[in-house]
Parts: sequence; structure tokens; C-alpha cells
Amino acid sequence: MKPGYHHKFKSNNAPAKNKNLIIGRQPLIEALQSGRAIDKILLQKNAGGEVIDEIRSLAKQYQVPIQVVPVEKLNSLTKAAHQGIVAFAALVRYMNLQEVIDFVVSKGQTPLFLLLDGVTDVRNIGAIARTAVCTGAQALIIPDKGVGALNEEAMKSSAGALEHIHICRVNSLMKAVDELHLNGIKVFASEMTATTRIFELNLTEPCAIVMGGEEKGVYPALMKICDTAFQIPMPGKFESLNVSVAAGMILYETMKQRT
Amino acid sequence: MKPGYHHKFKSNNAPAKNKNLIIGRQPLIEALQSGRAIDKILLQKNAGGEVIDEIRSLAKQYQVPIQVVPVEKLNSLTKAAHQGIVAFAALVRYMNLQEVIDFVVSKGQTPLFLLLDGVTDVRNIGAIARTAVCTGAQALIIPDKGVGALNEEAMKSSAGALEHIHICRVNSLMKAVDELHLNGIKVFASEMTATTRIFELNLTEPCAIVMGGEEKGVYPALMKICDTAFQIPMPGKFESLNVSVAAGMILYETMKQRT
Repeated sequence: MKPGYHHKFKSNNAPAKNKNLIIGRQPLIEALQSGRAIDKILLQKNAGGEVIDEIRSLAKQYQVPIQVVPVEKLNSLTKAAHQGIVAFAALVRYMNLQEVIDFVVSKGQTPLFLLLDGVTDVRNIGAIARTAVCTGAQALIIPDKGVGALNEEAMKSSAGALEHIHICRVNSLMKAVDELHLNGIKVFASEMTATTRIFELNLTEPCAIVMGGEEKGVYPALMKICDTAFQIPMPGKFESLNVSVAAGMILYETMKQRT
Repeated sequence: MKPGYHHKFKSNNAPAKNKNLIIGRQPLIEALQSGRAIDKILLQKNAGGEVIDEIRSLAKQYQVPIQVVPVEKLNSLTKAAHQGIVAFAALVRYMNLQEVIDFVVSKGQTPLFLLLDGVTDVRNIGAIARTAVCTGAQALIIPDKGVGALNEEAMKSSAGALEHIHICRVNSLMKAVDELHLNGIKVFASEMTATTRIFELNLTEPCAIVMGGEEKGVYPALMKICDTAFQIPMPGKFESLNVSVAAGMILYETMKQRT
């Protein structure tokens, strides 16, 4: 899997749901063998035989989860002859963080990444991806737990931008920060009580920004290993920016400093 | 109606639908007489009599539209004894632009208003209101045509901020710009092809910003009478900022210049 590769599935703003379905045994085997990203395989209860064994083996190899379901579930998804198997193609291909860093640096770009800690609403992730692509950020780093699949809803709220940015799904944001540090990338975290204001940061150097969820903010242990905590100063008495708007302000400031 | 007055209805993030209903004749008369803002009155077909006449007269006085409906419609809205009448309380009280200007100036504040031209999605208006309140803008100016009622959905996406900002619903945005000019308020308009970049504007003086809809942008005749057109420079090849994110960037720049 090479960085810079994006899935061939071309979404319009509201892709039909069944565009993501891979129906039947041979189509699924071909999809798996071609390295196409797949979110999940639904397998009819009691299905078996040589071909199913082959699919099980390929699914294991490519780390695609299999869920056993009654035939009615499959029938409700498609009227086509599904042969006991339907899979959901992933809209987004997840990338390896180190490969993304190498790729960005090799293109002569200054890394600008966003880490999303506790931003669980996939529509917010989509909206952030949209702004990120506009402002020249190269990657979103999200944890593999607590965040739903980047589905059609996320794609729609990103206006297709999720196809134009690297998405790294990591096992641990702490480890991701360590990896960024090892690559000389500064990590700044948004915190309402911080004393440094966003425009006091030097955002022209390679950096990653940690955005916390609207409720809980950035996880304390993660905050500790970041280089600087910053706030967006708010003159209004009402302190409740939407996370995608806050990300927009930070990306705007970065873009301004870099141009 | 004095500027600074806000409706007493306290929404939480997702107010129950029926919280906005005013049910029955006497409650409606009292609501109208107390000056409570009302979006619409639903009156049962063939209802009549002295009290209904009084309601008709009050509705006329306060410019509240009456819609005649079959009894089933009223029954579907409430199980309470509605006496042939149900009204929708407005969540937002609309203000007069000149009164808002006078009020803001009298408080010693520097006017910062947003005009929304073609921003028809009330959730976007809600989201913009939220950022506007956080960043110290005092008013949103919206046209009275083409924009839906600022309903629970708008209130929800504003996180309650619609209660904390003046909303001026005007017959003509052109006239509103004239009125702003007469009060010494500069009007800047967002346009993708403009040569002035947002951070080259002097935003410390009294000003209003025109945001266009995502599809069509600012109406050309309106653009002509604005003082300066500006763009948000976008290094990414993907030029498609969400209007509430773009508003966030502009308000951030203004807030930064003013602090």
C-alpha cells in the first residue's frame, strides 16, 4: 500500500448506499486479492465449502472482520444473487503514519497534520477533512477505537475531501505523537485554559495539531507529551466553538503563517 | 421591542418539539398580549365567535400569520384540549437593524455584523451564530425571503447561541447595506476571485461581513455596493470551504485584529 494512493471509488456528494456493496463469492475474492480496502464481510450462517474457506483465509490475511448473519440480512441488502456473502467496500483507505510522513517530506512539503482525540462524530471528521484539504494539511490521524467507519455520511460532510487527504488510523495517539516527535514534527494541542494563544505559535515548522472532543477536550496524558498547549482566545462570554470551526481557525492561522 | 431583549424560552440542546406550542385560546391571547414572539397560529376550520375574533385582531396587530387547518391537524399536534387553536412560539425574536446598531454603539462596542446572502440552511445559520457569539460579533442580518424559520434545528446547531445574538430579518439586504453605510459601518464581502486577502482588511473599525451561499456566492448587485471584496487564500487545490467554517476564519481574523 503506497501513500498517495486513493481508492478508485468516486463518490459524488451523496453516493448510493449499494455502491459500496461487493456481492457474491468471486467478486469478493477478486476485491480482496486486488488489495481493495474492505470494512466488513457479512457471511451467511452455515455457509461453507472450499470457496468460503478461501475467503476466510484471504479475510484473515487482509485483516477484514467477518460477521456471520442470517440469510434475511443479506437478502435485505441486495436483490442480486449474493451466494451467501456480501461485503462493504471501505470508502477510505487508511494509511501508515510513517509512510505518510515520508511521502509528504519526499514531495518537499512541510508536514501539517491533525490528530483527532475524542472527535467521534464522523460528520465532524468529514467537515474537518474538507477544511484540511482546502488549507493544505496533508493528513488526519484518528484512533482506531471510538470512531465509527468513515462512511457515506462522513464522505458527504467532507464534500469528497476524505478522498484527497491521508487518513491514518492508529492504535494509540500517544504512540503517534512519539512517532511524530521522532520525525522532528512538533505537536501542539488545543486547550481552553492554555496561556499561549494560537497566533503565538510558530506554525511554519513541521507540526501536528491535536484537537480534542467538544465535551472532554484532549486526554490529559496525551496533553502532557505535546510540545505546547494553546488556546483560541474568545472575547464572547459564550465559549463553545464547534470542533470543525475551531479546526478551521487553527488551519487558517497556519495557512496565513505559511503563505 | 427593545434591543437586548431575548426571548425567555430557554432551550437546552434539543428542546422537545411541543415546548414551542401555545395551546388553547386564553394562553394564546396572553402570549400575544405579553409581546411574546410567535411564528404562526393554526386555527381550526369553521372556528368562530368573540374570542376567535379577538385573536384574529391581536394576530393582525402583531403581524402573526394565521393558517386555517382541519381539526385533525390540531389533534396530531397535541392531546391537550386545544379549543381549536394552537400556535408556534418563535424561538428567535427578530430585531430592527437601526435599533441594534444604536444599542451596540451605546454599549461602547465596535459593531461587527454578519450578513448572510443565500445561506438558506438554518443549521448553517445556527452554526454561524454559535461562532459569532464566541468571537464577539453582535448581530446576524438575514433576508426575510428564502430562509426558513430559525427552528429547533437551527437552535440546536447554534448550541443555544441564537438566543445570545441579535437577529435582524430584513426585507432587502441592499437596503441593509445602505443603512449600515449611513451609520458609518464598512461592508466587506467574501468572494473567491477577489484580490484583497482577508488579513489585508482593517477589521478593527466598525464593519459588517457579507457571506454568500456555498453555491452562488454573493449576489452581484449586492457585491457592487460593498466597500471591499476579499478572499480567504486557499493553498489546497480543493476550494470548497463550508460557509460556517469560512465565517469562523473571518471572525477569527477579526477577533485577532481587535484583541
